[in-house]
Amino acid sequence: MNHRFPQDKIDAIYEAIQARRDIREFNQEPLPEGLMDRLFQAAHFAPSVGYMQPWRLLHIKNPKLRSKIAELVEHERLTTAEQLPSRQRDFLKLKVEGLSSCQEVVVISLMHGREAHIFGRRTMPEMDLASASCAIQNMWLAARAEGVGLGWVSFFDPHALADLLKMPRDATPIAILCIGCVDSFPDKPLLDTLGWGQRLQMADVVYTDTWPENAKSTPVSY
Amino acid sequence: MNHRFPQDKIDAIYEAIQARRDIREFNQEPLPEGLMDRLFQAAHFAPSVGYMQPWRLLHIKNPKLRSKIAELVEHERLTTAEQLPSRQRDFLKLKVEGLSSCQEVVVISLMHGREAHIFGRRTMPEMDLASASCAIQNMWLAARAEGVGLGWVSFFDPHALADLLKMPRDATPIAILCIGCVDSFPDKPLLDTLGWGQRLQMADVVYTDTWPENAKSTPVSY
Repeated sequence: MNHRFPQDKIDAIYEAIQARRDIREFNQEPLPEGLMDRLFQAAHFAPSVGYMQPWRLLHIKNPKLRSKIAELVEHERLTTAEQLPSRQRDFLKLKVEGLSSCQEVVVISLMHGREAHIFGRRTMPEMDLASASCAIQNMWLAARAEGVGLGWVSFFDPHALADLLKMPRDATPIAILCIGCVDSFPDKPLLDTLGWGQRLQMADVVYTDTWPENAKSTPVSY
Repeated sequence: MNHRFPQDKIDAIYEAIQARRDIREFNQEPLPEGLMDRLFQAAHFAPSVGYMQPWRLLHIKNPKLRSKIAELVEHERLTTAEQLPSRQRDFLKLKVEGLSSCQEVVVISLMHGREAHIFGRRTMPEMDLASASCAIQNMWLAARAEGVGLGWVSFFDPHALADLLKMPRDATPIAILCIGCVDSFPDKPLLDTLGWGQRLQMADVVYTDTWPENAKSTPVSY
């Protein structure tokens, strides 16, 4: 039996993968009707280790909460800048989040009570984060296909964000997602265009069998 | 400007997301021509924190290496069974990997030299794993659209696998991917059909603003 999608549907998957961008600039156009529910469903259909479904999605609607989240992010951005060995000034010119202009904010967290789950996690407990990241990638690709921008912000102190959102001690926030309409999806990642990094060659990331002796790490530009 | 894909292409994304399964049973039909290169490209177009591109893909072609990987997985499967508080017997009946029947095996690892990268990782260094997980989800969705099965095996001791594949000390394997053609894609996740878990309700995973006091963790069935 052939389970292959028709070719134009296969092409759509590769198109979404290649045209997806991490967005930090949004315009004020309204989102497509029902979009958020479709994105939440897309997240919930992600794979998960031992069927844990460890993702929890906090849809931030309270404007005061949103402002406080923005303050946490700004604090971490400045702290990161201080710790960069060089290029602090260049870094501070970069936009690392779109919290002030996006339409919707969603915080993604790992659930509490994860320790009880050892199926597929005995040696690698961090597989819960892996599963939740797949959920975010589902949302990202679906948003891109719907013409909507999404940015994953990881500039925050997870403990401070957990406190703000009244999370149980063993729940862990992993992402602040900014979602909104955009004027454009850049051809290349922003950090590429701005010279902070370059796309690696395929030969630098795909090896045969064992790790090559001359394998490169991705260079840092700061 | 409207960046929205045509509706049938949007539908294709949601279809792939919903029809993707974690596969452990493969048949011996040949893979579509050029598939592996397309999957590697799909992985390499994933988002990454600070543009780290931390994923490294080890395409396992040496049959001896593959047998040794299968031994590591079998060892971890038995060790996990020992540590389950109950249902060891049920667990041992489950198929947790498809290494003996799949066409291709790819080990995904985080690169070495990650410590130097602090952009977006100062407070959350595990964002490298998050990025590499998005890369795997890209491969998974692309494979599903092409009618090909993929399974993510996380039953292994990462140190033992790293040694076997001659990885540098600070590189970390996160997945053994089994890839091949399948007789069918089940309607539901295998662990659902077998009663190991149930899909949670949307209300149990999507919250508004703060964490609800009565929030559930996903129950364990062992």
